[in-house]
Amino acid sequence: MVISSGDEIITGQLLDTNSRFLAERLMDSGILPVEHVGVPDELPALTGALRRACEMAPLVVISGGLGPTEGDLTRQALAEMSADALVLDEAAERAIAGMLSRRGREMTERQRRQAYRPSRSVCLPNAYGTAPGLHAVVPVAGPHRSADVFCLPGPPGELRPMWEREVLPRLRPDPLHTVVTRLLHIVGIAEADCVTRLGDLTRRDRPTGLPLVGITASGGVLTLRIRYEGRADRKEAQRLVDEVESLARTELADHVAAAGPGAGGGMLARAVVEKLRGDGASTPRMLAVVESCTGGMLGEMLTAIPGSSAVFVGGFITYANRLKESLGVDAEALRRHGAVSRETAEGMAACGLERSGADYCLSITGIAGPEGGTATKPVGTVHIGLAARAGLAASTGASRSRLFLFTGDREDVRRRACVSALAMLHFHMAGRKPGEPRLLWEVDRAGTA
Amino acid sequence: MVISSGDEIITGQLLDTNSRFLAERLMDSGILPVEHVGVPDELPALTGALRRACEMAPLVVISGGLGPTEGDLTRQALAEMSADALVLDEAAERAIAGMLSRRGREMTERQRRQAYRPSRSVCLPNAYGTAPGLHAVVPVAGPHRSADVFCLPGPPGELRPMWEREVLPRLRPDPLHTVVTRLLHIVGIAEADCVTRLGDLTRRDRPTGLPLVGITASGGVLTLRIRYEGRADRKEAQRLVDEVESLARTELADHVAAAGPGAGGGMLARAVVEKLRGDGASTPRMLAVVESCTGGMLGEMLTAIPGSSAVFVGGFITYANRLKESLGVDAEALRRHGAVSRETAEGMAACGLERSGADYCLSITGIAGPEGGTATKPVGTVHIGLAARAGLAASTGASRSRLFLFTGDREDVRRRACVSALAMLHFHMAGRKPGEPRLLWEVDRAGTA
Repeated sequence: MVISSGDEIITGQLLDTNSRFLAERLMDSGILPVEHVGVPDELPALTGALRRACEMAPLVVISGGLGPTEGDLTRQALAEMSADALVLDEAAERAIAGMLSRRGREMTERQRRQAYRPSRSVCLPNAYGTAPGLHAVVPVAGPHRSADVFCLPGPPGELRPMWEREVLPRLRPDPLHTVVTRLLHIVGIAEADCVTRLGDLTRRDRPTGLPLVGITASGGVLTLRIRYEGRADRKEAQRLVDEVESLARTELADHVAAAGPGAGGGMLARAVVEKLRGDGASTPRMLAVVESCTGGMLGEMLTAIPGSSAVFVGGFITYANRLKESLGVDAEALRRHGAVSRETAEGMAACGLERSGADYCLSITGIAGPEGGTATKPVGTVHIGLAARAGLAASTGASRSRLFLFTGDREDVRRRACVSALAMLHFHMAGRKPGEPRLLWEVDRAGTA
Repeated sequence: MVISSGDEIITGQLLDTNSRFLAERLMDSGILPVEHVGVPDELPALTGALRRACEMAPLVVISGGLGPTEGDLTRQALAEMSADALVLDEAAERAIAGMLSRRGREMTERQRRQAYRPSRSVCLPNAYGTAPGLHAVVPVAGPHRSADVFCLPGPPGELRPMWEREVLPRLRPDPLHTVVTRLLHIVGIAEADCVTRLGDLTRRDRPTGLPLVGITASGGVLTLRIRYEGRADRKEAQRLVDEVESLARTELADHVAAAGPGAGGGMLARAVVEKLRGDGASTPRMLAVVESCTGGMLGEMLTAIPGSSAVFVGGFITYANRLKESLGVDAEALRRHGAVSRETAEGMAACGLERSGADYCLSITGIAGPEGGTATKPVGTVHIGLAARAGLAASTGASRSRLFLFTGDREDVRRRACVSALAMLHFHMAGRKPGEPRLLWEVDRAGTA
């Protein structure tokens, strides 16, 4: 059970990334979250959510509400729901004072409040902030009899290391309940096609004890989630999941882009980086990007992968036409065909390849909206170019491009363009013929899907 | 009450952006969400969450679970919790068949399932996908007697337009309950300082009927959330919120970077774009970027703002040193001081300004981690340069840089670097002296905070 506290979450001001992080890490430990709850900074709501969570699940993780402000109420809520009193933790107080003094500051009364804890809980040290976490074992009426409650600070940079260092060693997974999850990421086909190919594998009413397969679409990448949950031992559960994975790979063949954690574009970027890096025996191949409407998003996705510097040289954000020209894109072609055209996309990729000295160059130019669309080039029109030093194929020369008509808002169009660019390179490196497979949202030159 | 359904949310595979979108839009309509819940793709969990939600609140919005797969169970859950039967909606069936035929496809039995609805509900047309939404009014035992339940598709590109077109016109805000929220975004000071300056304004036990002030930190930007909630009419509520805003602005002076929706870096990027655009009377000032460790993230943040092309020309992703040199950064200085140095940051900004023809250029070079840190340049060390065509100040020449030591993981370091770069430009344009105000995570040349 994962609880996020904070008005900023409830009111939509802040995106709740902690719940996702916690859910991923719980799954890594073989613990399946049963529910996420987001609650406002109000004592009754927090206390109620904590109480309900402890009745539902033997493990409760709550993030946020441990700071020095009046809106930080998690420690009071924990004390109240477990009928406990707050006491000053002297070690925590010294840690807060020490951290502040290293920053040349005195501890205020407000900050001292962070050193209080319910008397039957322990403080979890915070290496990156002043607010310590809390751990309490709360007796409950439910069948699990007690719940481990972990309260973690809201800032992700504090929560994440505290999870690894303090929570992970204290987890007690249920030995009678095995969860094994495997993820497969699929590119270039629609969800309905994928379901058809997989047939019975995706049925929810498969015999008990067999892994279930779920499918999620995110930004043009489909993720299959193969999950075993039951009483088999870990080895047997792994075997069952392996079996389903192998069946799915057979059905989906070369649409499988990667396996493992992640989803959407981030996962595909990781797969592309790994493929460029190669097996270690040969020299890594280098990639450059030239981005117009995505403004740096493709470069950002690639460089989000640690170690991407081994394969990514960088590139050019040619947002204004002036920068496209100074990169070397033919000014006359730019004027005649427009910035959003096959000619410009291919020019961007070819010039980017030349100027960067990379082995591959991806280019993106399009209309992300909400303004700028026309009858012949509506919002969502994006040309994506790929140039390769070794040439793409005898018939097509060193660069080519593909035309997409993405749906969704500005953010969707941009993200889908980046994912499609990565998919183009992925399939090219996998040895597919130019233009194969046809990708989602791809349209032919006449503009029909 | 906002519910997100889907194993991909519960297991942390997908970040739940819908809840945030819905919460923001509800707030826009003066409706304060009381809780967020994320539930797995299981009928008992979904039905239970729907039932509890309807008892808690007169309005329930659930996203996901309307698609064609076996894991899509929202319509069954709605039918079950309201003791209703599923019937085929012929108009929805025609809409699905029409959308598929425009894509050159036949409707399968699986896809037809999406045209079923509980008999006492209505289908909400989906302009961007096959799955229609649902709206039902469910009688409940709670004091509000009935709850409006809206079921929306999971893909954000389908959910968002359906919210605007179908849900918004059907909302019935409570005339006796007024909610007015105002956001102020603060840059360059720590949360504790902010709390101290605001004094009693942030107390939770202020007399009933006065707006409350909450503070959230996100990526180096603090957001004040001034919220009135009560029985005053809208005009009076606005006046009370105006009053608190004005007090807060007086206390925080020129640290206020912007007001209005958003949080973190996105909001600051918007403020910078607006400031560059100017008042319409003068020519907009143009911005370029040169990014190393952020790999395009700063460009991405700027171009996420619709209309940013009026002020953003683009830039250079100089990830590899080769690209820094080809931009014009002095190879000898690069070799002597290293890629992560004051000299390199200032060279990047100066060359980027020159090559792009922009009025301002921001540059970022640093060590995002997890690898690459050294004793003298640990992970988190980032130099940020700013060059201005008009010069920065008589004493400092056309470009200067500032040194930061960011905490957190790769993603945190990169995001904080971008936000700090935007803050530097923001304060420069606001007429502050070079180096003022000192920003969070900024360190002096000797490397101490």
